[in-house]
Amino acid sequence: MLPIYIAMPCWDTTLNFTENSIMNRPAPAPTQFLSVEDVAAIVARVGLASTLSRMADYIEADYRRWQDFDKCARVASHSKEGVIELMPIADASSYAFKYVNGHPKNTGAGLPTVMAFGVLADVASGRPELLSELTLTTALRTAAMSAVAARALARPNSKSMALIGNGAQSEFQALAFHHLLGIQEIRLFDTDPQASRKLIANLRHTPLRLTLCASIGEAVRGADIVTTVTADKSNATILTPELIEPGMHINGVGGDCPGKTELHPDVLRASSVFVEYEPQTRIEGDLQQMPADFAVTELWQVLKQQAPGRSRADQITLFDSVGFALEDYSALRYLRDCARELGLGQALSLIPALANPKDLFGLIRPLSQAAPPQAAASGAAPRGAAPRSAAPEAARQELALVL
Amino acid sequence: MLPIYIAMPCWDTTLNFTENSIMNRPAPAPTQFLSVEDVAAIVARVGLASTLSRMADYIEADYRRWQDFDKCARVASHSKEGVIELMPIADASSYAFKYVNGHPKNTGAGLPTVMAFGVLADVASGRPELLSELTLTTALRTAAMSAVAARALARPNSKSMALIGNGAQSEFQALAFHHLLGIQEIRLFDTDPQASRKLIANLRHTPLRLTLCASIGEAVRGADIVTTVTADKSNATILTPELIEPGMHINGVGGDCPGKTELHPDVLRASSVFVEYEPQTRIEGDLQQMPADFAVTELWQVLKQQAPGRSRADQITLFDSVGFALEDYSALRYLRDCARELGLGQALSLIPALANPKDLFGLIRPLSQAAPPQAAASGAAPRGAAPRSAAPEAARQELALVL
Repeated sequence: MLPIYIAMPCWDTTLNFTENSIMNRPAPAPTQFLSVEDVAAIVARVGLASTLSRMADYIEADYRRWQDFDKCARVASHSKEGVIELMPIADASSYAFKYVNGHPKNTGAGLPTVMAFGVLADVASGRPELLSELTLTTALRTAAMSAVAARALARPNSKSMALIGNGAQSEFQALAFHHLLGIQEIRLFDTDPQASRKLIANLRHTPLRLTLCASIGEAVRGADIVTTVTADKSNATILTPELIEPGMHINGVGGDCPGKTELHPDVLRASSVFVEYEPQTRIEGDLQQMPADFAVTELWQVLKQQAPGRSRADQITLFDSVGFALEDYSALRYLRDCARELGLGQALSLIPALANPKDLFGLIRPLSQAAPPQAAASGAAPRGAAPRSAAPEAARQELALVL
Repeated sequence: MLPIYIAMPCWDTTLNFTENSIMNRPAPAPTQFLSVEDVAAIVARVGLASTLSRMADYIEADYRRWQDFDKCARVASHSKEGVIELMPIADASSYAFKYVNGHPKNTGAGLPTVMAFGVLADVASGRPELLSELTLTTALRTAAMSAVAARALARPNSKSMALIGNGAQSEFQALAFHHLLGIQEIRLFDTDPQASRKLIANLRHTPLRLTLCASIGEAVRGADIVTTVTADKSNATILTPELIEPGMHINGVGGDCPGKTELHPDVLRASSVFVEYEPQTRIEGDLQQMPADFAVTELWQVLKQQAPGRSRADQITLFDSVGFALEDYSALRYLRDCARELGLGQALSLIPALANPKDLFGLIRPLSQAAPPQAAASGAAPRGAAPRSAAPEAARQELALVL
């Protein structure tokens, strides 16, 4: 994987930098920004099926090198209305984090339940390379992750999926399972009929056969795969053990926060349970209901063939998905590469470009003052591509009046 | 404090939202962005002295309501070259976080040692309200915080300060102590003579008397206040006990990371030690060298007069500063208020504005497809101020070709 930004020269740290060498140094590249519209344009140009497929490949490739990553459970800030989380992760070369919220009542105020953005940064310098929207991307990467797990765990030739919860993420789940696993029929249910109508309207032009069901039980009956993706921040019981049939694969997406579960504990007991990152899922997943010694398998072990996935056709498999930082790392990596290929995104003046990096004060130095020797020698104006924004010269001119 | 964005109406959650009520709902305000140039323009228009003074007031006001905040130590990702940290904090209404790195060798590659940006979000909805540069702002708030602590701890009528470390933050420290405490003389030292020359050039038009010293000892001798703000990620010993004189206030800024200290342990033993947030300073401050039972006082207790600060003229006081998330919360709050007053900043398409918040798929729906019933009723185009970026219609048109 080639980095998309102009590489910084590998300075020999034993060199003594002269003013001349500073003058000749290329300017650090500015942070690139991908807006909501940029990510929508990526999906439009690449196609949704290819986007999901390539994102799944990026995720699977990163999960196969699990040991390369410095991992931690996400840092959550809970309130009565919802949660705001930061999800950092890093390997030796790149650091990524996502900001994401979960506020089930938001839809009543015209806002999505889940909103997100994230950053990919260079570990060697700490420079943020890419800032991107991740609301749309989270739906894409969550669906791609579900498909990665199901490819390893569901019965081959699965054709039908129950889809419980028809909110913002449901179309992405349906299409990921259609394009990546060959699912032909979706049996859907939501307590909000408008949500189901929206899902049907959005998918009616696809080859998927859509069946609106009157209950969870009706939706689940006979399905090869059951996906739960509900939003309520409560200990709900979407799936009870009597609904589960031998051989089913359960893709549990909505139980992803302390106090927010979807599955009866006996559903977990009846299943072989697979998780992204065990320490986080013990806190946040449906697994939070189970004792600490309840056995689970981390998915990367299955993908690396270090642990069995499905071993029998009648086995019930459960992917207790909570969303792990590595998936956002993979998604940001995909967006960065894709935006470079397509020439999308723009420079954002998030980090100062300094003529002399020790002269931060130069940003607010009055115009009446000359720049200090080193800054003058290397040119007072910031070099490289000029990111959009107000002119610093104007700011300095005003500063001269009030300092 | 009035919020700067258009308030969302307080919907009665018992109401059943009709399509009509959704149509009449005002669009959520987009995320505001403050660039490096915007923050420089704030300093230019408000003046540096007033900026530091107002920021110090915001910080002090927030420290006085310490119990209102949900606090945690920052989340650090360490590498050989440096550290990348996320610093979240929240009260009942606002959530803030900062991304910040520390890479001492960056200056050799034309990048600042410390780069930062941050977000202020609404706790009730999770919506990011403000994204701002925080590299320049971190220097401002760190200096303002140092001044807040020194106002409570240094001898009244302190006139001279030793400033050890003349890098990117040094001018801000010098001017904060000049404007907020009345410091008249700065005695400066750095192992890099170019850094000191830059500092002198930047401050030569101020009333400050600047004395370049040949050693740390010469700089410290007779000073009322000693500020250490060096960058090396190592267990350095900038101050040794024989340099410390009765009555001094030590403002220790650069020892702020595991393995990065500036003070000999006996300097801490000789001092009354004050910290921002004890659990974090035990890990990151010069305090990391001391046993777990070494007594310290959290600064908020002094500011609320719940604990003594300086009680004798010959007492040695030490503010073991590491930088706590609350200072960034205060700084972001100040920037938000100030940008509103001055009409600075711009809308950023970081979070989607959805006609129907459950219809995220609408962002990538092919144009050939009609919008689902609810979305159609409320208008297919996003409402409110249109943030800059590529046109989503163009993206959708292309999608029609490849889906």
